Amino acid sequence: MISINGRAGEIVRRMAADAEALGLSVIRYPSGATVIDAGVDASGSLEAGRLFSEACMGGLAQASFCQLDFDGLRLPGIQVATAHPPLSCVASQMAGWPVQWEDGDTTHSAMGSGPARALWGVEKILAELGYRDQSDLAVLMLEGDRLPPEKVAIDVARRCSISPRGVYLLVASVASLVGTVQVPARVVESALHKMLALGFDIRGVVSGFGTCPLAPLVRDPLRAIGYANDAVLYGSRCWLTMQTQDELIEAILDKLPSSASADYGTSFYELFQRYGHDFYRMDPLLFSVAEININNVSSGRTFRAGTVSSDLVRRMLVP
Amino acid sequence: MISINGRAGEIVRRMAADAEALGLSVIRYPSGATVIDAGVDASGSLEAGRLFSEACMGGLAQASFCQLDFDGLRLPGIQVATAHPPLSCVASQMAGWPVQWEDGDTTHSAMGSGPARALWGVEKILAELGYRDQSDLAVLMLEGDRLPPEKVAIDVARRCSISPRGVYLLVASVASLVGTVQVPARVVESALHKMLALGFDIRGVVSGFGTCPLAPLVRDPLRAIGYANDAVLYGSRCWLTMQTQDELIEAILDKLPSSASADYGTSFYELFQRYGHDFYRMDPLLFSVAEININNVSSGRTFRAGTVSSDLVRRMLVP
Amino acid sequence: MISINGRAGEIVRRMAADAEALGLSVIRYPSGATVIDAGVDASGSLEAGRLFSEACMGGLAQASFCQLDFDGLRLPGIQVATAHPPLSCVASQMAGWPVQWEDGDTTHSAMGSGPARALWGVEKILAELGYRDQSDLAVLMLEGDRLPPEKVAIDVARRCSISPRGVYLLVASVASLVGTVQVPARVVESALHKMLALGFDIRGVVSGFGTCPLAPLVRDPLRAIGYANDAVLYGSRCWLTMQTQDELIEAILDKLPSSASADYGTSFYELFQRYGHDFYRMDPLLFSVAEININNVSSGRTFRAGTVSSDLVRRMLVP
Repeated sequence: MISINGRAGEIVRRMAADAEALGLSVIRYPSGATVIDAGVDASGSLEAGRLFSEACMGGLAQASFCQLDFDGLRLPGIQVATAHPPLSCVASQMAGWPVQWEDGDTTHSAMGSGPARALWGVEKILAELGYRDQSDLAVLMLEGDRLPPEKVAIDVARRCSISPRGVYLLVASVASLVGTVQVPARVVESALHKMLALGFDIRGVVSGFGTCPLAPLVRDPLRAIGYANDAVLYGSRCWLTMQTQDELIEAILDKLPSSASADYGTSFYELFQRYGHDFYRMDPLLFSVAEININNVSSGRTFRAGTVSSDLVRRMLVP
Repeated sequence: MISINGRAGEIVRRMAADAEALGLSVIRYPSGATVIDAGVDASGSLEAGRLFSEACMGGLAQASFCQLDFDGLRLPGIQVATAHPPLSCVASQMAGWPVQWEDGDTTHSAMGSGPARALWGVEKILAELGYRDQSDLAVLMLEGDRLPPEKVAIDVARRCSISPRGVYLLVASVASLVGTVQVPARVVESALHKMLALGFDIRGVVSGFGTCPLAPLVRDPLRAIGYANDAVLYGSRCWLTMQTQDELIEAILDKLPSSASADYGTSFYELFQRYGHDFYRMDPLLFSVAEININNVSSGRTFRAGTVSSDLVRRMLVP
Repeated sequence: MISINGRAGEIVRRMAADAEALGLSVIRYPSGATVIDAGVDASGSLEAGRLFSEACMGGLAQASFCQLDFDGLRLPGIQVATAHPPLSCVASQMAGWPVQWEDGDTTHSAMGSGPARALWGVEKILAELGYRDQSDLAVLMLEGDRLPPEKVAIDVARRCSISPRGVYLLVASVASLVGTVQVPARVVESALHKMLALGFDIRGVVSGFGTCPLAPLVRDPLRAIGYANDAVLYGSRCWLTMQTQDELIEAILDKLPSSASADYGTSFYELFQRYGHDFYRMDPLLFSVAEININNVSSGRTFRAGTVSSDLVRRMLVP
């Protein structure tokens, strides 16, 4: 059986072995757990972001850089090709493991994603996919502005029922070079996430390909989160190959792209302000790719919804 | 001397070692011959198609995915860069080894391509190229909808004068994920094939680069073959670097692209019906790239013929 | 500390191990020094050019091929993503080590670039960057039409204070396949070089990405040099991520692209004739990318100057 933690672990060990060139700092805790700073105090790099993304997809996807054209505006982008999209994007890359820790009177939090989720295995979606990993490695990506203390790693080990020596936490702020890559690399995941939100059975998705411009980098974390989300919402394209019935696709097709939301056309940053900094008051249906293409193998037909607006890309991503 | 079977064998062994993630099934026959199901019962993957293509070009080319733009229609594509195009594309990737076997009263057939052809060495084109491989590995790609029985592998071993233990048969239907990649990856080969059909000496071609959209996937093999061929005929571009005389290029230039055929503009599927399902009644001059660019090193001049029609790409590849 | 010679050495050893397929010839001198002919008598290949470029950037960058679109004209291109641009592009890739040797009455010269410069360490720019490599390998790229004699390699060893056994000289004419790749791969370097010429402190550049069409290949070295330079001057785009003050960028922004020069619009070959074959009479401010984008992390703003003219690309690169 495919072990997404085992596969991610191979990538992460290569990252650790080439840490300095990649702009990473590797911290080994006394328990043996490893924290890789990929964008908190460390500078990171585009290549580190690419490897971070491949590991976050459980080693089942290939990410590479590309130049994307938006009616004459060219931007660097990331493209992702993935086998087993339910495993790579949903069981692994999706953010589903919130982490919190106390530091004196302050509570820090970071959103966890990556293959360790499929070791812990408590999320409902994992049961629905019928996948549970078995591995003595646990790889968890944390999106946050602080490095977690050892107790977080030990807690991850406990939940995953492995030794702390097998725990690898990769931490990067969205406001980092790695952040400008790894969020846009969620392009296929974003399409699947929206499908799941619409109640669609994604288990028939056999292949995924997607492109997304890199986000511009800014020190302010909130603006950085805004740009990274806008890159996906307004600049991404996804192609899925799946086996299903045409009617099932047609039933949700119009709702799939980000343009299906009434909030489409406004930057994430503005929306975040509008909804009082409460992510959960934002329209969950906004979060998707700008353009989606579905190739139904059963019928041979292809479906498309949404379109990338070069004007919006320019407005959102060229500040 | 370069061994294209040795090089392909390294890629194929990596594929076998990562079979599950790539969506491959590996069958080892008692004789020691290996059959890799890359798209018959196995699901395959885009990455498997990419590696299949690189092995089919004798390990002398690099294939990678890209996003291609057809006047606003974006499609995933494959790009190929190859050294030694006569070896990689003609001596190896070209389809030239038809395989047949009986199963009760039924005769099954599959078209063979790949480096094993240069071990058997009976094709006239190989003599013209002056290349014959020496290797204890034989890698043959079979395009078909059935896995071959052991006797096929043993026959390959015999013709290649090696032990069955060195035989690797990679089998994929065109109606598979691997098929949607490996046929479009024949872009440079398609240009060289057309040159050969026009009697042009291709030995001066020192470098090749090409792009082609992936074919949409459909279960029906005949439609799948149609889409895959249309991807090359209507969506591909090739750049060749060669040493020759400008006059020799000019003498064939207009005839090189697919548009030189009277059948250009009609889908392969329709043409196939029109000619009573007889491939050999189709115009052989149709089979080529849509756009060809030739850089003649001797003169420094570049030549171009054919053009990719975005309308035809949309009509053919977005069913 | 990062050793750019150590990193480049790994790439070069892989090149040597796969020399025949890459189109390289490897010459081992009695002193143990290695000369790799990548484009003098050897044919080379696109892939050899790609690896040559990665080694020339001290193993800190990833180069890959792509298809670029110039308003309907498609050309193969190279794209470069690099961490540590001051190290990879300035301390390593920049041409700064002229090499000369006598052969009877004739003086041959070649321009050296690559990481060995940071071992010798005599250039002022290296002191400004505060970087000096320590390695028992020295990798020097020579742009020239002759293979250097052993005494050149021994001289490199002496200046770098290492054994000749650690010296690797990679030699390619611009009029070679490797030349058509490795000059366009200098896209990020070209932007940084122009910044330095304008007195800008490039130490805050944390990431670079660039694209450039490959140069057409022609046997005549002077025309080849012309095409390769035109590819950068008229067809390249660069994106830099840096930490600085907006005012400092604004002060030089208009002067950054090649279009800031009065010589912009004329081919390198014509200019070279106009200035009596004297490179140093050409406008140094011409040498830059066609389009530059700067993302200032400190402010989050992005800046752009210059534009790629598809007409000029067509005129210069499609002879």
